[in-house]
Amino acid sequence: MTAYDPSNVFAKILRGELPSHTVYEDTDTLAIMDIMPRADGHVLVVPKAACRNVFDAPADALKAVALTTQKLARAVKAAFSAEGVTIQQFNEAAGGQVVFHLHVHVMPRFDGVALRPHTGTMERNEVLANNAEKIREALKKI
Amino acid sequence: MTAYDPSNVFAKILRGELPSHTVYEDTDTLAIMDIMPRADGHVLVVPKAACRNVFDAPADALKAVALTTQKLARAVKAAFSAEGVTIQQFNEAAGGQVVFHLHVHVMPRFDGVALRPHTGTMERNEVLANNAEKIREALKKI
Repeated sequence: MTAYDPSNVFAKILRGELPSHTVYEDTDTLAIMDIMPRADGHVLVVPKAACRNVFDAPADALKAVALTTQKLARAVKAAFSAEGVTIQQFNEAAGGQVVFHLHVHVMPRFDGVALRPHTGTMERNEVLANNAEKIREALKKI
Repeated sequence: MTAYDPSNVFAKILRGELPSHTVYEDTDTLAIMDIMPRADGHVLVVPKAACRNVFDAPADALKAVALTTQKLARAVKAAFSAEGVTIQQFNEAAGGQVVFHLHVHVMPRFDGVALRPHTGTMERNEVLANNAEKIREALKKI
C-alpha cells in the first residue's frame, strides 16, 4: 500500500490552498465541480479524512462519502433534469485514478448521450460557476 | 421516481429463486460474481434492502454497501494480484443501469488492460466458480 501523499490537489483544496467550486460541505465530506467534466454538472465527492483510495479509507469516511454521494446524485439529476446518473470511483492508476485522495465521480446522464472523453481540457470558469450554482439551488430542495 | 420492481434478477437471487456465485454475505449485503464480467473477478455488491438505485436507497443500505464494497475491493485485488480496482454504480437506463436493484460493480484492473466491452456473453460457469473461490479465500485473510 502506497502511503497517502498530502501534496495532492484535493488535499490542497481541503486546506484552502487551492480554489474550488464547492457545492456542498459537511463535517466529513466536500463536494466540488470536476474542472475537466465528462458531463455538465460532473461533481466529485471527497472525504475530509486523509486517505488515498478505497483500500485505506476509514469506515466512517466511506459511510459519509456514500451519504453525500446520494445527496449529490439527487441534486445533479434535479439541477440538470437528467435521466440518470453514473457514479465511478477509481483506485490506483491501473484502476483509473489520477488524483490520489479518495473521490467519487457523480455525473448526470441522458439517454443516448455518451460521457465525454478525458481530453485534459479544463472547462471555462464561468461555466463551472454557473453549474455549481444550479446544484446548490437543487440541494436546497432535497 | 419509478417504483421498485421485485421481479428483477437480483431480487430473485436474494429470495433464492435464482442461483448465483455468492462470495460474501452479511446481514445487509450480498456479493456475487457478475455473470458477464468485464474483467476476471468482476463482482457485484447488492444490498438486501429493496431499492432501485441510489435515488431511493435507504441510508443504512448505502452505508452497508460502502463497507462491503471496500471488503470486496481489497479481496479482488489480493485474489488476482491486481494493480488497481475500478468501482462503478449506474442509476437508471441513461446512467448505464440494466438490472433495477441497486448494485455496485467492483473490477480488478491491470496497467494497460482495458475493461472488456459489454458483449452480453455469459462467462462459463466453471470460470466463475473458480474465480469465486479465489475471492472467498482472499476474504478469509482480510
